[in-house]
Amino acid sequence: MRLLITAGPTREYLDDVRYLSNASSGRMGYAVAEAATALGWQVVLVSGPVEIPAPAGSEFHPVTTTADMRDACLKLFPGCDGVIATAAVCDYKPKERVAGKLSKTGGPITIEMIETDDVLAELGRLKGDRFVVGFALEAQNPRENALQKLRRKQCDWIVLNDPSAIGSDTNSVELIAEDGTTAAHWAGDKRDVARSLVDWVAANTGKS
Amino acid sequence: MRLLITAGPTREYLDDVRYLSNASSGRMGYAVAEAATALGWQVVLVSGPVEIPAPAGSEFHPVTTTADMRDACLKLFPGCDGVIATAAVCDYKPKERVAGKLSKTGGPITIEMIETDDVLAELGRLKGDRFVVGFALEAQNPRENALQKLRRKQCDWIVLNDPSAIGSDTNSVELIAEDGTTAAHWAGDKRDVARSLVDWVAANTGKS
Repeated sequence: MRLLITAGPTREYLDDVRYLSNASSGRMGYAVAEAATALGWQVVLVSGPVEIPAPAGSEFHPVTTTADMRDACLKLFPGCDGVIATAAVCDYKPKERVAGKLSKTGGPITIEMIETDDVLAELGRLKGDRFVVGFALEAQNPRENALQKLRRKQCDWIVLNDPSAIGSDTNSVELIAEDGTTAAHWAGDKRDVARSLVDWVAANTGKS
Repeated sequence: MRLLITAGPTREYLDDVRYLSNASSGRMGYAVAEAATALGWQVVLVSGPVEIPAPAGSEFHPVTTTADMRDACLKLFPGCDGVIATAAVCDYKPKERVAGKLSKTGGPITIEMIETDDVLAELGRLKGDRFVVGFALEAQNPRENALQKLRRKQCDWIVLNDPSAIGSDTNSVELIAEDGTTAAHWAGDKRDVARSLVDWVAANTGKS
């Protein structure tokens, strides 16, 4: 088994200093990488900027923006058997990035934001016989929105987690299947959730 | 000597997940805290969200937004002899913070941003006989802009560093005095720069 994992946040820069991001720590994805490595899998980890060290034994690809993450994933996914996409990518970016540092004007400024590339949807389109496990973080109608995301992005399963998981050491998740049923529930330290998920993938994807 | 230090970035949230920030790691401010503690000073550290551990021996006040940092500083500064303000605060924030998570619309979105409170300028106005050392990070006309910042914010000295210092272990800085002269130049690991700065403050502020 050769597994692609995305992890961490991405950043979308307004200028050379300021950026839009989120508090994703990378812990969930790095824990999945460790659990998969422990099973003897080859792990290819594409990670946004985080402060935790790269997991031992992973092929590590650091990226910054969503476009960087997309480029790395499109290059690496064909050589893998599947992907577990834990990354919390920025889905909007400033339409323009200003060189240097925007000076304060004394007044309000208006920023036009456009959608970034949808990395997970592109992997879903390209998957062939590879499996795709997405992650969803939804504040409103979480289960419905997660299932819609699964279908729109052609995931095989989607892991629904709560916004409180971001930056935390623990997580409480529901694994949702294509038919909308609950495949599993796991809660606890992200390392325990990661081990359960990897064991589940090993047992249910027919990949080894 | 009782020293207030600000460190790290602040975050300004668009919704419950997405925020504007910068790559400040907190390393410069935490190194100043360690150097000051090593001299036997009492250190009061107000820090934005960073991944490095709170320095031993400091009175630690974690904050998230620029408004949080302002509130903490205005409460703590009167009990201190001076401030070294290394924090890279967000100087703009979205005019409104949306509850939950903004849904993608398929099209561009426009965000109106307003200036945050100017923490350093407020400390400058309130300083009385306390000293104020600011930090400036300027991409264009760095020396001129740093000196203007010093005067506008009533700093006694300002440390000019390069945008490349953000998130780095090293720094190369110029300490600029009120009259526009160069008080010192230091370069190297942030811990070395911090020690030089603290020794300089000890020798030049008349505080002990």
